Amino acid sequence: MINKISIIGGDLRLVNLSEILVNEGAEVFTYGLEKSDYVETKKCDSIQEAIESSNIIVGPIPFSSNGKTINAPFSNNEIYIDELIKLSKGKTLVVGSIKQEIFQIAADNNVQIIDILKREELSVLNAISTAEGAIKIAIEETQKNLHGSNILILGFGRIGKVLSHMLNGIGAKVSCEARKNSDLAWIKAYGYNPIPLSELKENLNKFDVIINTIPYIVLDRDALKEVKNDALVIDLASNPGGVDKDVIKERKIKFVWALSLPGKIAPVTSAEFIKETLYNLVKEIDI
Amino acid sequence: MINKISIIGGDLRLVNLSEILVNEGAEVFTYGLEKSDYVETKKCDSIQEAIESSNIIVGPIPFSSNGKTINAPFSNNEIYIDELIKLSKGKTLVVGSIKQEIFQIAADNNVQIIDILKREELSVLNAISTAEGAIKIAIEETQKNLHGSNILILGFGRIGKVLSHMLNGIGAKVSCEARKNSDLAWIKAYGYNPIPLSELKENLNKFDVIINTIPYIVLDRDALKEVKNDALVIDLASNPGGVDKDVIKERKIKFVWALSLPGKIAPVTSAEFIKETLYNLVKEIDI
Amino acid sequence: MINKISIIGGDLRLVNLSEILVNEGAEVFTYGLEKSDYVETKKCDSIQEAIESSNIIVGPIPFSSNGKTINAPFSNNEIYIDELIKLSKGKTLVVGSIKQEIFQIAADNNVQIIDILKREELSVLNAISTAEGAIKIAIEETQKNLHGSNILILGFGRIGKVLSHMLNGIGAKVSCEARKNSDLAWIKAYGYNPIPLSELKENLNKFDVIINTIPYIVLDRDALKEVKNDALVIDLASNPGGVDKDVIKERKIKFVWALSLPGKIAPVTSAEFIKETLYNLVKEIDI
Amino acid sequence: MINKISIIGGDLRLVNLSEILVNEGAEVFTYGLEKSDYVETKKCDSIQEAIESSNIIVGPIPFSSNGKTINAPFSNNEIYIDELIKLSKGKTLVVGSIKQEIFQIAADNNVQIIDILKREELSVLNAISTAEGAIKIAIEETQKNLHGSNILILGFGRIGKVLSHMLNGIGAKVSCEARKNSDLAWIKAYGYNPIPLSELKENLNKFDVIINTIPYIVLDRDALKEVKNDALVIDLASNPGGVDKDVIKERKIKFVWALSLPGKIAPVTSAEFIKETLYNLVKEIDI
Repeated sequence: MINKISIIGGDLRLVNLSEILVNEGAEVFTYGLEKSDYVETKKCDSIQEAIESSNIIVGPIPFSSNGKTINAPFSNNEIYIDELIKLSKGKTLVVGSIKQEIFQIAADNNVQIIDILKREELSVLNAISTAEGAIKIAIEETQKNLHGSNILILGFGRIGKVLSHMLNGIGAKVSCEARKNSDLAWIKAYGYNPIPLSELKENLNKFDVIINTIPYIVLDRDALKEVKNDALVIDLASNPGGVDKDVIKERKIKFVWALSLPGKIAPVTSAEFIKETLYNLVKEIDI
Repeated sequence: MINKISIIGGDLRLVNLSEILVNEGAEVFTYGLEKSDYVETKKCDSIQEAIESSNIIVGPIPFSSNGKTINAPFSNNEIYIDELIKLSKGKTLVVGSIKQEIFQIAADNNVQIIDILKREELSVLNAISTAEGAIKIAIEETQKNLHGSNILILGFGRIGKVLSHMLNGIGAKVSCEARKNSDLAWIKAYGYNPIPLSELKENLNKFDVIINTIPYIVLDRDALKEVKNDALVIDLASNPGGVDKDVIKERKIKFVWALSLPGKIAPVTSAEFIKETLYNLVKEIDI
Repeated sequence: MINKISIIGGDLRLVNLSEILVNEGAEVFTYGLEKSDYVETKKCDSIQEAIESSNIIVGPIPFSSNGKTINAPFSNNEIYIDELIKLSKGKTLVVGSIKQEIFQIAADNNVQIIDILKREELSVLNAISTAEGAIKIAIEETQKNLHGSNILILGFGRIGKVLSHMLNGIGAKVSCEARKNSDLAWIKAYGYNPIPLSELKENLNKFDVIINTIPYIVLDRDALKEVKNDALVIDLASNPGGVDKDVIKERKIKFVWALSLPGKIAPVTSAEFIKETLYNLVKEIDI
Repeated sequence: MINKISIIGGDLRLVNLSEILVNEGAEVFTYGLEKSDYVETKKCDSIQEAIESSNIIVGPIPFSSNGKTINAPFSNNEIYIDELIKLSKGKTLVVGSIKQEIFQIAADNNVQIIDILKREELSVLNAISTAEGAIKIAIEETQKNLHGSNILILGFGRIGKVLSHMLNGIGAKVSCEARKNSDLAWIKAYGYNPIPLSELKENLNKFDVIINTIPYIVLDRDALKEVKNDALVIDLASNPGGVDKDVIKERKIKFVWALSLPGKIAPVTSAEFIKETLYNLVKEIDI
């Protein structure tokens, strides 16, 4: 479906992506993956060569940590954002987590830049990996089986939905907290125990494991008072997360803040998901 | 949670609702349910008396079939929309399926009228009943077990989601058709086989049962050509539905057009769902 | 896998079986299915011809209702057991539900007679169809959704296991009664609520639907006292069943005694299951 | 349900058991748990004192590793089998994994010794913990999600049944290998893909993860030839296991031999399961 594609920088997921694409028949041009390159890609000697070889360029997910160079842990050299974008004139650049100023630079250089992490389907698929990672942590960090345990999931967004489905599937007694009446109806429809936010506090002391997916503090000092001493709390939400870290330390409750699970737990599947999203994208924008 | 409430007209679900509310401690004033009235409600001799007795009035779902009188199959008398609304001045009237002109009349008379069927949580809960009804029909009308059968669901909205969950739960091999990439990702996440609309036609010949939930024609003459002779097609979408009825007749494919399942399949649960929605509503608008 | 086979008498399932076997490439010789014969089988003019044409003969399931003639609702003529067996000398005769005296006659005539209903795998597979039929009845005969209902299954044998799995799969709250501690452990492992026989009576009043699978009276007068007035009781056990029929009538509890569901609910799948069992059988006994 | 009980030696599960029993109201006398003793048990100064205090004595699971002393990792002193048994005259001694000679010594000393690991219900419950442990390992040791992966389970005994149920519940594509036709029918009934032993070899190359539960070599040199290079193989069967360890090393296939998971993965739940079994046992033998 994709004939030619360039991959520049990125982590193990882009290495895996290059392998998958080669195996599906694409010509894949790489730069900045030297330390772990798949044997059958076409290694380019310069960014320029890599970019010139195709019309669609896939870069790091997330794109950059410092705003100057792109994330390229398998590269022998630093790769500068400015250079990459200038060379990509007239082409499509697909990367993850783009800051506003980068969009501007891309526009100025006539580069169509796309933030693949903004694609809804990729977020849904990544929720599968996140949920699986959370289950691994929960099995590991408890002295009880998840089967038969009372588990609370805070938030019924993408991760909440997939995680409750899986936990229910291995036999946990799943409760989900949500604010919206329609979400509470869904929780009921799927067979979990719905807990309206307004009734959260009085229910917290029932749970063996509490998993947060909400990106603001839900488990504050007051709420944490109700949590059992031997409960496990897992926070899947990115900074600042949903749990008051100071209080949970004081209370000596077992706590894991688990971020970026898809790339860690399942780099191969993550690459598959990126590929599928890329195919959708290519079809839509007709590159 | 509700102290006093009036129920005027309506079908078996409102009869059941009156019983449930009495059992939860409410004073329930009824008019227009004479033929099947629950013994412990307060029967009123006139609409006026029923309306005066509380601030919240529940009426038929759907409200009216003819635009003049309300639906009241258990009433000894006709109940006129005009009269009902005029008497409800300053009160809240909760009914289902309200036409635009009724909203206008209500506004003119200072009546707060609410269409309970527009509540998202009720739609979700009703999807449970619809799905269960569809399963009953599918078991009844096929000579095969659903377990192990290839079943296609057209559309991944509320009914599609609940139905695929249940069918999977009894062991069917479930495929779901959707247009949006994010819906296709959800279908995959939940473990069903995703079929993009663009690949629908070439897949239709695989299915033993096809259930439509999309409110416009998806199974047209061309598509129906691909459907197996001994397949069962069920249409759950309201007029015009998603299936070309003439063609399916020509093709002599077994077909069931199943509408308004919740009230038929589970009038008691339907009343429960109405009650829960009513509680949410009362809390929100602070009646 | 089977080259030549004769089918003599039997109900819709054997008609379907003949069609399936033809479609898998077998030569199928039939006698006693005239009224509903599949067009591509070889119709024989006499039992003798049918029997001579192959080494394996499939007959009615169950074999006979009167001990003289075999069950053959689609036959134009009566078919006598004696004649059938005498003609089958040296061959293998596969039928269902064989009385002891028939085994003797077969032995005397050097006929290898096999009761296919004694095959464990067929019993398991038939449990799927029985469970599905029970679900249809339960949806039909209640005014509530099964989803969210409290359902009790009496007995955790083959039907109990499959039925609890399916009911759980559509969202019912499933409890299972069993006597053995190991069965109670399995019930817990699969995520249902285990109820030891010793605690049955005190729990009966919780259930909206009670489904019996135990072939002796469990729900006697004393037990039935505890069952809710508006509960539905379904008995899947053959005569005398597990429910005191007189008492349940007195109590006016809704009751369905549902027997022989597989042939009624899913004659095509039932034929498939018979075919699979036949294949296993042929492989084992090396016919 | 148990008034007085003695616990002597054993691992974390017996420590947890003592705590659970105290919390359910029993007087619990301990010896040989000094290093990790629960504060509210009655600590005894000698084995003799511990044994005299009750009629039922619970000891290590497994009982002994060397045939001379019992397993007592939390004890300050060695505890000799001989002494323990002689002092238990006329009492009931419940331990795990008893060798034949120990049964003889117990009989000679008029001690009723019971091997709790022989209890079917405990084996079933332990299968839950084993399955959960296997899932953790599979998530950890693969670079793919289990969701969507092709997973093969060898053997459909207790662990096979629970494990396939859970893996299916988190969205894996589960195949189970079995020899018996009735097991293959169950596998189909539960919705997994059945693979007869006779067709194992030709199917092995499909699987991302293979989990063995059979206690003799199934994956021999020939079979391992068919396994994918990047597959993960987990062996849950005790010595010698079901996998040729030399060949798997040669083939450089990722391999984990995971034994005694319940005590490692879920010591608290394991203690719960022991307690439940103890209750059953006490009821049955009327101690």
